[in-house]
Amino acid sequence: MKKEELIRQIEGGLIVSCQSFEGEPIHGEGIMLKMAESAKWAGAVGLRANEPKNVKEMKEATGLPVIGIWKQEFEGSDVYITPTMNEVDALMEAGSDIIAIDCTNRLAPTGEKAYDLVRKIKAKYPDALIMADCSTYEEGANAIKLGADFIGTTLCGYTDYSDQYDGPSFPMIERLCRDFPGKVIAEGKINTTDEARRCIELGALCVVVGGAITRPHLTAQRFVEALQRK
Amino acid sequence: MKKEELIRQIEGGLIVSCQSFEGEPIHGEGIMLKMAESAKWAGAVGLRANEPKNVKEMKEATGLPVIGIWKQEFEGSDVYITPTMNEVDALMEAGSDIIAIDCTNRLAPTGEKAYDLVRKIKAKYPDALIMADCSTYEEGANAIKLGADFIGTTLCGYTDYSDQYDGPSFPMIERLCRDFPGKVIAEGKINTTDEARRCIELGALCVVVGGAITRPHLTAQRFVEALQRK
Repeated sequence: MKKEELIRQIEGGLIVSCQSFEGEPIHGEGIMLKMAESAKWAGAVGLRANEPKNVKEMKEATGLPVIGIWKQEFEGSDVYITPTMNEVDALMEAGSDIIAIDCTNRLAPTGEKAYDLVRKIKAKYPDALIMADCSTYEEGANAIKLGADFIGTTLCGYTDYSDQYDGPSFPMIERLCRDFPGKVIAEGKINTTDEARRCIELGALCVVVGGAITRPHLTAQRFVEALQRK
Repeated sequence: MKKEELIRQIEGGLIVSCQSFEGEPIHGEGIMLKMAESAKWAGAVGLRANEPKNVKEMKEATGLPVIGIWKQEFEGSDVYITPTMNEVDALMEAGSDIIAIDCTNRLAPTGEKAYDLVRKIKAKYPDALIMADCSTYEEGANAIKLGADFIGTTLCGYTDYSDQYDGPSFPMIERLCRDFPGKVIAEGKINTTDEARRCIELGALCVVVGGAITRPHLTAQRFVEALQRK
């Protein structure tokens, strides 16, 4: 799929992140594949999936474009979203339409800056589309300078130097959208339809919602906490 | 479990309704059982389940009290939530802690008023706890007069003579809570944590949330619609 065509397809729409992990009550037995099918049923314009095999399965099952990531933890590095070229290679092989990587100012397991991976991917896969998961405005601006196609606000609140909000990082989204129109994918802590809507109003290209749709145990927990609040 | 003990256990808490139906992308393969486990993980105080076998399985898997219903459609009647004594018998047999039935002013498949089932259940199972799913204040008051233990606001908006709201029926919940304290279980169209919280503030004994937690395709659809709104 050409870049322009993909952008037309996802513009203004909902991308559903379908991820679950060992130890979660919803993990295993193809449940995330059902979540991907639910997203398609609902009219989502794309998916975000973790691990090459899930990227492949979800693409085949739904026909939707998939943002591929591969979360891998390495000792000595806080960077875990697609941290090295090995993960990128496998995600490309699996057919990811967009590759999302950690593009923060932190050190990757390779000892280089996480954002250094952008230029390496563009050198190896000139046609690859890169979503740069960032935690601050500055990281987003840097990602675009390096050649990333999209900025994801995914990591705001998840680095120790970024702003902490209970909900989405609207100030970061707003400023990035103003300076990099058409390149900002809002992601991170978007739990309500009003929050998602606000991201589009601020100028986001599209919105990624994960847990609020695909992790019912966390949604139930938010309800439990709301009822317990004094 | 004695009535007082059950009430203590569910008071102020979240009950998660775990139901799916043929044709839904999330149906089958034990997914609703995973939803029940997710509810328990999150600290829910109970479950609401459709069909005797699901009541039994979810009770065994979670140890949580279960409100049992059995949706059955019969030609010529609009009443489908546990419409006859046959469904009640099977739900009792399955170990339902509370039996929920349609307690509206409509005609059951038997040709009698739906609410007539309350007295019959109490005659056959004197210790059974009955949640009367109602669509109006008057139906709720009538249910209590007939001996129902709890009023559910489940059916408000689902009979052709009841109020239609986009969200929960707060006026009905408020009035019932004032006149029947400790007996109102808020249910129906509760999609946000604020709405759930408001039900408790109005005096509801507890709150049932279903789709917003256990039907991800409907949640995704609400997000898609919010983004498409002009």
